Amino acid sequence: MRLVRFGEPGAEKPGLIDAENHLRDLSGEIADIAGPVLSREGLEKLRALDPKSLPKTDPSHRLGPPVAGTRNFVAVGRNYAEHAAETGSDVPQEPLLFNKAVSSIAGPRDGVTIPRGATKVDWEVEVALVIGERCHQISKAEAMDYVAGFCLCNDVSERAWQKDRGGQWLKGKSAPGFGPLGPWLVTRDKIHDPAALELWLDVNGQRMQTGSTADMIFDFATIVSYASEFFALEPGDVVTTGTPHGVGAGMKPPVFLKAGDIVTLGNAQLGEQRQVFSA
Amino acid sequence: MRLVRFGEPGAEKPGLIDAENHLRDLSGEIADIAGPVLSREGLEKLRALDPKSLPKTDPSHRLGPPVAGTRNFVAVGRNYAEHAAETGSDVPQEPLLFNKAVSSIAGPRDGVTIPRGATKVDWEVEVALVIGERCHQISKAEAMDYVAGFCLCNDVSERAWQKDRGGQWLKGKSAPGFGPLGPWLVTRDKIHDPAALELWLDVNGQRMQTGSTADMIFDFATIVSYASEFFALEPGDVVTTGTPHGVGAGMKPPVFLKAGDIVTLGNAQLGEQRQVFSA
Repeated sequence: MRLVRFGEPGAEKPGLIDAENHLRDLSGEIADIAGPVLSREGLEKLRALDPKSLPKTDPSHRLGPPVAGTRNFVAVGRNYAEHAAETGSDVPQEPLLFNKAVSSIAGPRDGVTIPRGATKVDWEVEVALVIGERCHQISKAEAMDYVAGFCLCNDVSERAWQKDRGGQWLKGKSAPGFGPLGPWLVTRDKIHDPAALELWLDVNGQRMQTGSTADMIFDFATIVSYASEFFALEPGDVVTTGTPHGVGAGMKPPVFLKAGDIVTLGNAQLGEQRQVFSA
Repeated sequence: MRLVRFGEPGAEKPGLIDAENHLRDLSGEIADIAGPVLSREGLEKLRALDPKSLPKTDPSHRLGPPVAGTRNFVAVGRNYAEHAAETGSDVPQEPLLFNKAVSSIAGPRDGVTIPRGATKVDWEVEVALVIGERCHQISKAEAMDYVAGFCLCNDVSERAWQKDRGGQWLKGKSAPGFGPLGPWLVTRDKIHDPAALELWLDVNGQRMQTGSTADMIFDFATIVSYASEFFALEPGDVVTTGTPHGVGAGMKPPVFLKAGDIVTLGNAQLGEQRQVFSA
């Protein structure tokens, strides 16, 4: 299934995109794409519905992030060797986890305001995992059972705040709008090979990033199992799994986003995002 | 007001502790200590209630964390000079922010399970701020207007996971139970001088930490304003503001918690916590 949340920010309704690409309203069936709906049992119930029985709705609705109730937005740093190299860093020995503030989460086509004081705003196309059930200290073998599905993420970053201001990375990863998710939460059963997802990102129509999850240093199951060693993951939590090379900070000279820039990114199975940046 | 949440984990009801130290049930008035209830207007409505009109309830109820709906649990590292020194670190030039997973939040007297693989579990008595209203890029002068109140926090830490495993501090700060909050959310108007809160922490009855918020390097308003420069804070978010010296990792030789240890901590205005650690 391709699950979505449509409507104005804070008032989104749950929906799905059917096989003919129609937007169908799920709000008569479930309250939101959140909590128990994301469990294996909850998704099975949705799968049992006939999409044609759900009301078709206006396809021009704004899409919000395709998951609600997120309380932990975890990210993995330097998870592609060529990206680690372009940042001047060694390949990490274990997954490098950091947080994005949950308040940074946005819809896939929402505009992004460059926050006051930001000077080095950068892009990062990534595949994010959406947690379906609570897990703590689970093995790699069982890890993917706790994942509801996948969505696209632009891990928008302010490099000066991330790297030049001391402390932890959180500061440079968390401004409002810095975490566009979606358009769709694609359930796990609908991704043929998670280890072969091709990613791309353009700035103003120019290709900046290409990559494949085949090149991740730590695969999805390793990341979930590893994170669960240290903390409990809960339904709706989002784990974004690192970006391939081609970020602005890695260019010579570095290139950062300015007002008017348009970032587009996508994957054939996960859909496309588009963000207009403004001052 | 001293606001509380009482009942079993996940099913807490809102309440308050009245002037005679009776537990009063607020569930007829509000759904929870969360969201708009925490705003200046929401708290004003609660203040207008006659506590004697609220049902008295069994004082032996378990207390949960005194705030719900938290989506960001931020902490400040090395915010007391003597603590920075005992960790072998310089005093930071700006507040050092990191995250604890929201899933680590627990009640003030809940037992703490030492997670599998943990070898260096440590204590940190702190004052935490509870955010009352959304704020982003606010000045220091207005920062405290956005704070609903204060509560006690034990910033339980696993030092090997925090320091020896690479990456960011999140890993060592976030196991289930590592964030006991409460017993009370004391509203801002009831704290006479936030810059003179005396803190203490005992392990098995032996005094390990004493300190005063007078010795914080960055005061509460500075921390809130600073954090808001980088991300939006929302109602129910918790910002814990650093620990004085006397943590286990700073002892010579270091001392860490083991099964059977009992940690108690407190402040005269914020109440007391007690945690039994187990394997």
